[in-house]
Amino acid sequence: MEARLHELRARLQEIDDINSAAAVLGWDQSTYMPPGGAPARARQLATLSRLAHARSTDPALGRLLAELMPYSEQLPYDHPDAALIRVAQRNYERMIRIPVDLASDIAAHTAASYHAWTQARPANDFATMVPYLERTLELSRRVADCFPGYEHPADPLIDFSDYGMRAAVIRDLFARLRAGLTPIIRAIVAQPPIDDSCLRKYYPRNDQLAFGEQIIRQFGYDFERGRQDLTHHPFATKFSVGDVRITTRINEHDLGDGLFSTLHESGHAMYEQGVDPAFEGTPLCSGVSAGVHESQSRLWENLIGRSRPFWEHFYPELQQTFPQQLGNVPLDEFYRAINRVQPSLIRTDADEVTYNLHVMIRFDLELALLEGSLKLRDLPEAWNARYAEDLGVTVPDYRDGVLQDVHWFGGLIGGAFQGYTLGNILSAQFLAAARAAHPEIDDEIGRGEFATLHGWLREHIYRHGSVFTPNELIERATGKPMEIEPYLTYLRQKYAAIYGIALEG
Amino acid sequence: MEARLHELRARLQEIDDINSAAAVLGWDQSTYMPPGGAPARARQLATLSRLAHARSTDPALGRLLAELMPYSEQLPYDHPDAALIRVAQRNYERMIRIPVDLASDIAAHTAASYHAWTQARPANDFATMVPYLERTLELSRRVADCFPGYEHPADPLIDFSDYGMRAAVIRDLFARLRAGLTPIIRAIVAQPPIDDSCLRKYYPRNDQLAFGEQIIRQFGYDFERGRQDLTHHPFATKFSVGDVRITTRINEHDLGDGLFSTLHESGHAMYEQGVDPAFEGTPLCSGVSAGVHESQSRLWENLIGRSRPFWEHFYPELQQTFPQQLGNVPLDEFYRAINRVQPSLIRTDADEVTYNLHVMIRFDLELALLEGSLKLRDLPEAWNARYAEDLGVTVPDYRDGVLQDVHWFGGLIGGAFQGYTLGNILSAQFLAAARAAHPEIDDEIGRGEFATLHGWLREHIYRHGSVFTPNELIERATGKPMEIEPYLTYLRQKYAAIYGIALEG
Repeated sequence: MEARLHELRARLQEIDDINSAAAVLGWDQSTYMPPGGAPARARQLATLSRLAHARSTDPALGRLLAELMPYSEQLPYDHPDAALIRVAQRNYERMIRIPVDLASDIAAHTAASYHAWTQARPANDFATMVPYLERTLELSRRVADCFPGYEHPADPLIDFSDYGMRAAVIRDLFARLRAGLTPIIRAIVAQPPIDDSCLRKYYPRNDQLAFGEQIIRQFGYDFERGRQDLTHHPFATKFSVGDVRITTRINEHDLGDGLFSTLHESGHAMYEQGVDPAFEGTPLCSGVSAGVHESQSRLWENLIGRSRPFWEHFYPELQQTFPQQLGNVPLDEFYRAINRVQPSLIRTDADEVTYNLHVMIRFDLELALLEGSLKLRDLPEAWNARYAEDLGVTVPDYRDGVLQDVHWFGGLIGGAFQGYTLGNILSAQFLAAARAAHPEIDDEIGRGEFATLHGWLREHIYRHGSVFTPNELIERATGKPMEIEPYLTYLRQKYAAIYGIALEG
Repeated sequence: MEARLHELRARLQEIDDINSAAAVLGWDQSTYMPPGGAPARARQLATLSRLAHARSTDPALGRLLAELMPYSEQLPYDHPDAALIRVAQRNYERMIRIPVDLASDIAAHTAASYHAWTQARPANDFATMVPYLERTLELSRRVADCFPGYEHPADPLIDFSDYGMRAAVIRDLFARLRAGLTPIIRAIVAQPPIDDSCLRKYYPRNDQLAFGEQIIRQFGYDFERGRQDLTHHPFATKFSVGDVRITTRINEHDLGDGLFSTLHESGHAMYEQGVDPAFEGTPLCSGVSAGVHESQSRLWENLIGRSRPFWEHFYPELQQTFPQQLGNVPLDEFYRAINRVQPSLIRTDADEVTYNLHVMIRFDLELALLEGSLKLRDLPEAWNARYAEDLGVTVPDYRDGVLQDVHWFGGLIGGAFQGYTLGNILSAQFLAAARAAHPEIDDEIGRGEFATLHGWLREHIYRHGSVFTPNELIERATGKPMEIEPYLTYLRQKYAAIYGIALEG
């Protein structure tokens, strides 16, 4: 059995090496690649994807896993070998359903579509992207159809990113969340808007970068095992436990843009840096789902990075970094500015309350596109209608409308967005559990110390990688299944104080 | 036959994609990778190398080539299909001799050794590198032994980089060159040394980078299909015809260091950017040998970039960029400073006359190590003795002695250095041929125009990629086999004028 386990690890390691190489190529494509590199890069990524796919679906791997299954079933559920065999088997079952040519087509199309989008978005050119989207939708449906028996064609795609979730469950969850959010937003928008002009002064790029990097270093992001670069659309990416990178973007006329992107991506990256290094090279060695991943980025960005205790500590340092811009701005004015709730156009710029409405719009449109009840040529109109209805804003162009997010233009349609709101929900549930175990966490945050919180997250979430399912992990870490109440409670308490209003559940 | 050709191209394309992915990982390793990424990166590169090697030695590829051979022999020698089949067959014959485990060991060892060297060199720590070098030497000998029947164990390794050359031929060529160089160097060092202190002022990094990039843009390096980044040891690397990158290093207290590195690497990169794009994805799509490659880097760096007409045009711009540093320095003083001949410690800093002595030292030591007549533990002593004897300089430490070059620490021992001097020889031979065809080239250089020269090089060298052997290419481009006289004539004429001395052949 030892020899078979050794062979399994070697096979998984090779797959991981190829996928990690592809991740380096993807990172380079988004950060430093010159325009002329695009056609070959698409082909190179397609080749690596094909090689990884062939190995991930090798019948010999299937036979090996079948031989190992009885062994794994004798072990405790959370034994690393049992988890490895279980997760590898689950991935194998999923992968063998997707034909190699389809996987290769997706990789090539994704790279080409992403490249076209990087030009079409600044040019405000939706028409150019329509054929790309048509193809993306077709490929997405073909992937879904590899998993017959679904309730909704989005279900298999959702299952890829948020294992164990389904469209119907999320629709219900989102409906209940919306019911909780609507009165909060209604009460807030009835108040005079917060003045956040202190954030819109001129903040030089390098000072912004240095300040953000200093904060995430204190959070516990390890720069010996990572780095930050600039991209259009910030992301975190992992090449090994020892090399987990983030990207950000800087707007010299908006302090919040780059700073909170950096905090956000550092949450994703700390999760990946915190996985047990013994899992390196196996499918256990990564965050377990989009939702749990997003819970970490949102926890560090919002629940910590936009909290009052946090800024009681860091604001004097920020003022020292930008004395002319912020020297005369009181903490309370700054704190209110970074927490201003204002229905708006851009998801990634949205405040944490209305953010979820952006996600729900995309989630609903994805489902409609996959169902065929919405045609791609009608997508901008549907998008704009929902923004008018849900957020009360008028979408002026494609650039800040339907073209704003990379997801549909560099991946599949379906399964890409629900994780953001699942993450918001979970961020509050996890933080509440950490606080219950360590009531001193809030005082520590007020001193700029994060070791207890980071330690709890590493112990209960990060180190486990993909050993448990998302639902198992949530229950083990918090003692309960996913629930929306901690998140709604968090929002009500925070925004009642900021806006001086009563918000009750 | 069309179907077989198609299959050949598909197989070669896949190999090229894997190798290109490995090149991206190598570039990242040298530019941006955090320290924690090193162990996994070594493994990832080993995996890609193993995958490429398996495909390059696939018996099915051998059978395919055997089937295509009769077809290729009916075609004219320089027909692209004939060249493709011929070169692919040559590579295949070479590759099948190297076992897959050996290729994989080399890739893993190379990455680990390179990483150790990046720490050992600044720490002046030769002892740490000895076990790495022992392993490198062992692996190099094992590679040579895959090609039994060699005259010298370096021959197979030399053949990899400079196809058609052998140790004995190079020894003879270098002996004749040394006989020509010695009187030149002797006459120069008898003169009062040139004052090059104007280069050692403070030159801010970003201004240096911008000036260098402006020059190579005028040379014809295409930034839409490339970029420049910073590394310890400058290099050029290619991921596709559309993505050929260079790196440089900047010393803010030495203007020449970064500037001439940039010009040098741009020569390599313009060669790769200039290959016929129809060859993309095949072994025809790259420069033909180390020597011919180096002829281009040295041509642009030295024969153009350190010439008087060049600086007659660019020096006023340089003075405008650095008015405080160079505003009062006459052109002639600057021109003499960048062409100062001074026996010294560091190959990459050496003037173009003594440079070849650095190469010959390394070439001779490589041969001795491979023969076993020199032990690795005695390498520093042998190195230092040769520097005392040949260049009259005392090596003060390992850092600027035996640890200075990446080659032995990030690759094989053998075949790595001769190309630099072959390149010097060829640079003058190619430029003389271009001048004979286009006497207006010198006037154009004096106007900062390079299109005629670049066009001649592209037409006679770059576009052919690896269609011809190095010797065929040299003969076709210049009408003669490789000869040292144009290079010696160039040096004599230039340095006689600079030092005001008589230098005759």
